[in-house]
Amino acid sequence: MATPADITAMRSAVALAARGLGSTSPNPVVGCVITDASGHPVGSGYHQRAGGPHAEIHALREAGVLARGGTAYVTLEPCNHTGRTGPCAQALIEAGISRVEYAVGDPNPQATGGADTLRAAGVEVRQGLLEDEAEAGNLAWLTSVRRGRPFVRWKYAATLDGRIAAADGTSRWISSAASRSDVHRLRAEADAVLVGGGTLRADDPHLAVRGIEEATQPLRVALDTRATVPPTARVLDDAAPTLLVVGEEADTRHLPGVEVLRLPLRDGRIGVHDLLDRLYARGVRSVLLEGGPTLAGSFVAADAVDQVVGYLAPVLLGAGPAALADAGIGTLTEALRLHVTETERIGPDLRVTAVPTTTPKGA
Amino acid sequence: MATPADITAMRSAVALAARGLGSTSPNPVVGCVITDASGHPVGSGYHQRAGGPHAEIHALREAGVLARGGTAYVTLEPCNHTGRTGPCAQALIEAGISRVEYAVGDPNPQATGGADTLRAAGVEVRQGLLEDEAEAGNLAWLTSVRRGRPFVRWKYAATLDGRIAAADGTSRWISSAASRSDVHRLRAEADAVLVGGGTLRADDPHLAVRGIEEATQPLRVALDTRATVPPTARVLDDAAPTLLVVGEEADTRHLPGVEVLRLPLRDGRIGVHDLLDRLYARGVRSVLLEGGPTLAGSFVAADAVDQVVGYLAPVLLGAGPAALADAGIGTLTEALRLHVTETERIGPDLRVTAVPTTTPKGA
Repeated sequence: MATPADITAMRSAVALAARGLGSTSPNPVVGCVITDASGHPVGSGYHQRAGGPHAEIHALREAGVLARGGTAYVTLEPCNHTGRTGPCAQALIEAGISRVEYAVGDPNPQATGGADTLRAAGVEVRQGLLEDEAEAGNLAWLTSVRRGRPFVRWKYAATLDGRIAAADGTSRWISSAASRSDVHRLRAEADAVLVGGGTLRADDPHLAVRGIEEATQPLRVALDTRATVPPTARVLDDAAPTLLVVGEEADTRHLPGVEVLRLPLRDGRIGVHDLLDRLYARGVRSVLLEGGPTLAGSFVAADAVDQVVGYLAPVLLGAGPAALADAGIGTLTEALRLHVTETERIGPDLRVTAVPTTTPKGA
Repeated sequence: MATPADITAMRSAVALAARGLGSTSPNPVVGCVITDASGHPVGSGYHQRAGGPHAEIHALREAGVLARGGTAYVTLEPCNHTGRTGPCAQALIEAGISRVEYAVGDPNPQATGGADTLRAAGVEVRQGLLEDEAEAGNLAWLTSVRRGRPFVRWKYAATLDGRIAAADGTSRWISSAASRSDVHRLRAEADAVLVGGGTLRADDPHLAVRGIEEATQPLRVALDTRATVPPTARVLDDAAPTLLVVGEEADTRHLPGVEVLRLPLRDGRIGVHDLLDRLYARGVRSVLLEGGPTLAGSFVAADAVDQVVGYLAPVLLGAGPAALADAGIGTLTEALRLHVTETERIGPDLRVTAVPTTTPKGA
């Protein structure tokens, strides 16, 4: 029933939504295209940042009176609540919109009900146009709402034989410049970037976004149970905000001015869900996990990896640490099974994106 | 200068050549298409098995008198020597062919010179049409001629984090049924399939081709330095020929009827190049290396891997043996750098094909 014009308009809305990735939390990314009564695009917009206007409001402002009798294509169900800028459902009604096509229903109990409000006002409402694409575009936010914790994307770079460093520890650079540049895009899309103490001490990582114009810097989160990081660590500079997560007893007197989060230790480690809960409470909806194999293992063991992005370099080493360790998996039937959603060449490397699957693997 | 019709004919010849993969050794695979004087295809053929007619002869027989004044498209330079069925250059001249397009020059000193013979007889000869495709189709044979040893394709199946088994050793099945079926195609294309003693004892592999009609069974080569394999091992059944490679001192009295190759041990192991030399001498031009991480490591260390085919299963384990071990690489600058030539989804898995590169990796 969707016409080619409907699909074009919604695809444009999905693309617009993606421009907000990394800067809208705790809100979702949303795109909106408005066509007039004869189907011509007359307004478009996207949600740019929390506290700013929603996508529909941007698009309605651009459309002005031409919105009357027109159609609004929105990637997410228009909100029904009166937040800082809403509700959008009421704004669409007041602008005289006749039809609303939205791709994905709003799972947020605070915001849901927009479709009902629109229908009650006589607006024709349909859900489901390009639902998969819109859902994929909002994967982080939707996952965070459904799970009540931040979406976690684990990123690693390894050789074809699964090594993240050579036998002597050398690891710069296994993946190519193109892959490293791509990682900055992942950082810019995330609300927080996370590393563990091992990586902190071994690599002195910076974790800020470089090379992307107008990128929103993520919160840099460094786990350091005993607060052994020196004040000169690169992650503590002012290129981006930083949160140092330490054990309750850690002495942080050598780190004045550093924002510190104290968490109870469990078997000497910071608990994955303790950490995610605290990050969620401060508005973090997506985490890029850049830590080493042990930290990644603890996230896998805690069932807290929602997406895996592996940069596989066409290199063989035959020795050296693996990308993932200590995930609590002892036998093959306990393995974390994934579904590959995308493969792409990034320079000489291969980027594989996968998500955990709940269905048994085809045997 | 090549017309679309030229390209179509040569592409068809390349596809025909591929039908011979696995059954022509020690000869190359070759395809041939013949068009008449007005450019219509009138004959085609491929080299099916050593001792049988060459591709050109098949195509000329089908074309008959229509070949006169026509063009022959051949994937490899027509041979000049009088072997069991040649020389093809003379046959093309006698059939009245006016023009010969061949993709790849024959590097074999015994066979080269066909182009000169054709030119001396007044035939128009051009080399280079779809050279890359034809070269890729004959990769195993061309490599074996250039290196004077069999082409070695290393195949492995691993998880995304590079494990070939779980911590407790369980490994059936990491890769999918689709990938395992694809491996049978690789076996059918190879002259020999090779495993080491570790795999032999741990997995009792069969190594014969199943599920492919009219497949030529490869020679199964099992390395077993001390000949500890029991006579009931699956690899010793009569589904395909088998060669058991043992150390000079090994006692093989419990294995009557098994073909045994004795080689000197070097540091307790069979030397990679000793083995490849002996296989080459008996006509093996391509080897599918299916051994475990240690055997693969010794081949990498001996600079004897010409192509890597990795089946990556979307699975995470976090523990268990890696796909490659003991390759003699201690630091990142010594790593074996590859170039990815193909990536393909095989069922739920990802198949990555790569070849060693001699150029430095883009940094």
